[in-house]
This record gives sequence, structure tokens and C-alpha cells, in this order.
Amino acid sequence: MLGAASVALTTSSASMLTSCSSACKKEQIPSTPLRLSFQEHTAPGDSLNERFDFMENLGIVGFEPGGRNLANRVGEFQQALSGRNIKLSAICAGFGGFILAEDPKVKAEFDATMRDIIAAAGELGSTGVIMVPVFNWQAPSLPHTLDTRQYLCEQMHELGEYALKHNTTVILEPLNRKEAHYLRQVADAAAICRDSKSAGVKCMGDFWHMQEETSDYAAFMAAGKEYLQHVHVASRGRRIMPGEDGELDNYVEGFRALKQLEYPHYVSFECGTKGDRTQTVTAAVELLRSQWEQA
Amino acid sequence: MLGAASVALTTSSASMLTSCSSACKKEQIPSTPLRLSFQEHTAPGDSLNERFDFMENLGIVGFEPGGRNLANRVGEFQQALSGRNIKLSAICAGFGGFILAEDPKVKAEFDATMRDIIAAAGELGSTGVIMVPVFNWQAPSLPHTLDTRQYLCEQMHELGEYALKHNTTVILEPLNRKEAHYLRQVADAAAICRDSKSAGVKCMGDFWHMQEETSDYAAFMAAGKEYLQHVHVASRGRRIMPGEDGELDNYVEGFRALKQLEYPHYVSFECGTKGDRTQTVTAAVELLRSQWEQA
Repeated sequence: MLGAASVALTTSSASMLTSCSSACKKEQIPSTPLRLSFQEHTAPGDSLNERFDFMENLGIVGFEPGGRNLANRVGEFQQALSGRNIKLSAICAGFGGFILAEDPKVKAEFDATMRDIIAAAGELGSTGVIMVPVFNWQAPSLPHTLDTRQYLCEQMHELGEYALKHNTTVILEPLNRKEAHYLRQVADAAAICRDSKSAGVKCMGDFWHMQEETSDYAAFMAAGKEYLQHVHVASRGRRIMPGEDGELDNYVEGFRALKQLEYPHYVSFECGTKGDRTQTVTAAVELLRSQWEQA
Repeated sequence: MLGAASVALTTSSASMLTSCSSACKKEQIPSTPLRLSFQEHTAPGDSLNERFDFMENLGIVGFEPGGRNLANRVGEFQQALSGRNIKLSAICAGFGGFILAEDPKVKAEFDATMRDIIAAAGELGSTGVIMVPVFNWQAPSLPHTLDTRQYLCEQMHELGEYALKHNTTVILEPLNRKEAHYLRQVADAAAICRDSKSAGVKCMGDFWHMQEETSDYAAFMAAGKEYLQHVHVASRGRRIMPGEDGELDNYVEGFRALKQLEYPHYVSFECGTKGDRTQTVTAAVELLRSQWEQA
């Protein structure tokens, strides 16, 4: 159904281009680049430097490490990134506890560890720190009610303001319902960003988890320029490399939204592989670049 | 932020039109008409016929009665609509009980009364019967969990298949969280439609309740051609006539999505008024038509 709408748009655009001047064509096609990012073990290699060499050869410009023990790794990352055309994209979680914990001790653990990671993320120039409000396996958690939503927005406000002081943000990640029923869709995360009333509260979409969406395009448009701070990519059926699930791995509709939004941040790999990493990673990058062109 | 994205689109479209041939222009502007609909007491008048006269004079082509006692009103509506350029748009609720009731008796009341309304809606040629899974005041209800979501999809499947047999549909309406925390966003309703696996399960957006959305455009695009079966309209701050909340009452972004989707159904008034109905209703219709043109 999004398919139908988008096909209509594409057809219309195509017809227009045929009968438009080249000046018109220039305005129609945005020049937004696809900025790809890898997590720490996406690239093959035995050390950070080997992996960064591989990434640079492929034109990968972002690096998304996990947040665990981040404060102790700031120097290591700064050194390895020095002189390279790779920047910190985002920090992936790594905190203890969770924000919707019923137990005050578990909530306090979240607050303390998350703030340490935020401070380190700021030092590293990260766009933000990714967080999930509560996984299904985390219990006891606050119930899925109106009051909890209000509480979450208040807590996110505090966290967002803290992140801003450290020149970074916190990024809410919706997951598929089997992993995190509480927050499943990008539009929901975006509304929490708005209602948290802090410019330090952002959200993201993950193409694999976006099985929860009826439309990749609409999901990213709901987050929009104001709230969309990061994107994860994986194959769409098994969370392996983009392309390893064959024809299922279509990112064009989502990419079209990112281009329309002139999305300035990263599309970051979060996935394993069933094949030889040197080959599957390279093929995945080629696939994504090709679909970005099509979008 | 959607604003920003859409402004970018608008600017781009405007530039294109300037440098495009008229053939190109024709393709760019969809000819989708705005089909407006009124509820039973939207128009002034002491009888159905007086209200229908008023509506026809204004070019209103849809009528959305409540579902209460509908089976006994089929003949009355058929007679009053006979020979007029007004069709049944949708049936607004009217059932007893609710689908997410914990108490089997309350669920059984929903099943029986909803099916009676669906059958009558089919006789009247309605696009569907609007329903809310659970209002906040309805208790005890099933908890907001993964299991409840699966149960809702199974129950909606049954209802959708029943509706199809009667040549109509059931239409899930998301409300703002103060009224119905369970289902607040159009993208969520659309995903329930998809997962219910019945072409008889549809959804809608209500411009007033869409205060839950960060983007009217993205909300309608998430529902898309496949699931979007109805739209409600009201002022955006107080649920009175469109325009009675002044500059707040902007529908252009949402209308742009409806035009892009070539939305074939109705935009139906569900609102009161603070002013004289004859004037405020007429002004609201003019406002909406003007914004539809702008979209």
C-alpha cells in the first residue's frame, strides 16, 4: 500500500523529469549522501585498526561502538580514529538497569551508568546514545499505562537535558514486539521525543525491527528532521547482512524518506552474517549504495 | 519538522512547475476530490430531510450516522437518502461492550451488537463501522501486553471476515491518550489491520485525535491506500468546527497525503461548534476546501 503510493509518486516524478529542463531535474534530486557506519565487529579484522582500514577502503564514515565500559575506552577510540575519515556515529546502549524499572535500585543503576556513557559519548563527539526503555525480558517494569508514558517523558526530559550539556543526545530505539513490546514504532518514539520537551531526546529506526511498520517511508517521515538521529540496518528477515535475505532486503522506500528529509546522520550496520564477512559486508555496502541511488 | 520536510517538497514542486510544461503540470496535480461527510447533527435543521437539504446545498456528499439502533433505522435512512447526491460514509460505533473486555459477558455484548450494526451498515452501503478497541474508562480490560495484541488481531480477523460477507468493513479509530491510551496512532492501527489478515479490517485518522502524531502526513501515509478507510475532521484544539481554533486549524499536510494516496473515501465532520451552526458549518467547509486546494 505504501508501495502503491510510492509507485505513483515515482511514476509521476519520472514523467516530470522526462518533460522537465535539466535545471528542474537538478532541483528534484537531492544530493544527500549515504553515510554508512559499522559497529565494532561488523568489519573483518583482528584489531580496531585492521577493521578501520577495511572500513576506510570501503568508504565507511561512521563507527558505532557499544557503550559498555565506554569511559575507559575513550582514549583508545580517539587514538584509533585519529587522522581517519571515520567519526563516531552513535553509542549503542551498554548501560545497566532500565528506565522503566519498577525497582528504584534498578532505575538508579540505569541513571548512573547511562550518565557515564552519555558523558563519554560527548567526549567522543557521538550523535547520541541509543537506549530501549524496557525489553520484554526486563522485569518487574512499570505497566504500559498513561501514567507510565508521562513518567517516561519526564525522565527522558532529564536525560535529554543532561545529554545536551555533554553535546550529545539520547536516542530512543523502537524494537519489534517480540523483543520490546513497550516501544515498537518510530511514530510512537517520535511523539515521546516531542512530549519530552528536550532537544536532547531523539529517536531512530532499525530496518530489521521496522517489521512493526506498515511503511518504512511513513515511519521515517514521522520522526522527520527534528527527531530522527540514527538508523540501523540489517537484512529484513534474519538480522544478517543486508542482501543476505535476498529480495526481501529492499530499503528503497525508507531511503527515499531519508533523502527527502536530507537526513544528515548515519545508517549503521547492526547485524551478523551467515557468510564470509569480507565478502558479505562488501556486497551489503554495494547493495545499500545501489538502493540509495534508486531511492 | 514534518513542516520542514514538506516545505522542502513544496518548494521543489513549485520550482518544477515553473520550469515544466503544462503536460507535466497536469501529471503533478492529482485530481482527487475532497469528499466531505457530516454526522447526523452536524448540519442545522429539525429533521433529516432539512439537514440533507442543507448538506446538498453545500455539496456535502457523505452522511455518517451513529450505530445505535441502526437496524431499526435502515428504512428511514434509505428513504431520506433516496434521490439525493449523498451516500452513507461510515457508521460511527453505537455497539455495547468492547472488544478488549476481560469479562466474557461484556465481550459477548460487543460481539452481538457490533454484528447487528455491521449487517445494517452493509445494507446501507457504508464503507465501514468505526470502533475503538477500549476507552480508558472501560474496565476491566485486558492488559496492554503482547498477548492482548495477538488476541485483538485474531478477534479483528473474525470481525473483518464477517464485515466482508456483508460488503462492508470494520474501521479501527485511534484516539488521543486521554480517551483511549490503548490505540493512539494511525501507524499502530495500520499494523493491526495488516496483522489481522482480513481485508475487512481497516483504520482511520481523526484530525483532532491526531494530536498524538508528530506528522499528519506520515500518519496517513502509514495507513496508505490499503488500510485508510475513513477520516474525521474537527478543530485541532477543542473539537469544534474546523477554523474555530484559528491558525491552529491547519489540515494541509494531512490533505497532501490524502491527495497523494488518491484517497477515495470521506472526510467526515465529528465536532460541535461554539457559534451559530449555519455560519460555522459553512465557514468550516470553505476552509477545508481552500486547504485541500493548497495541499
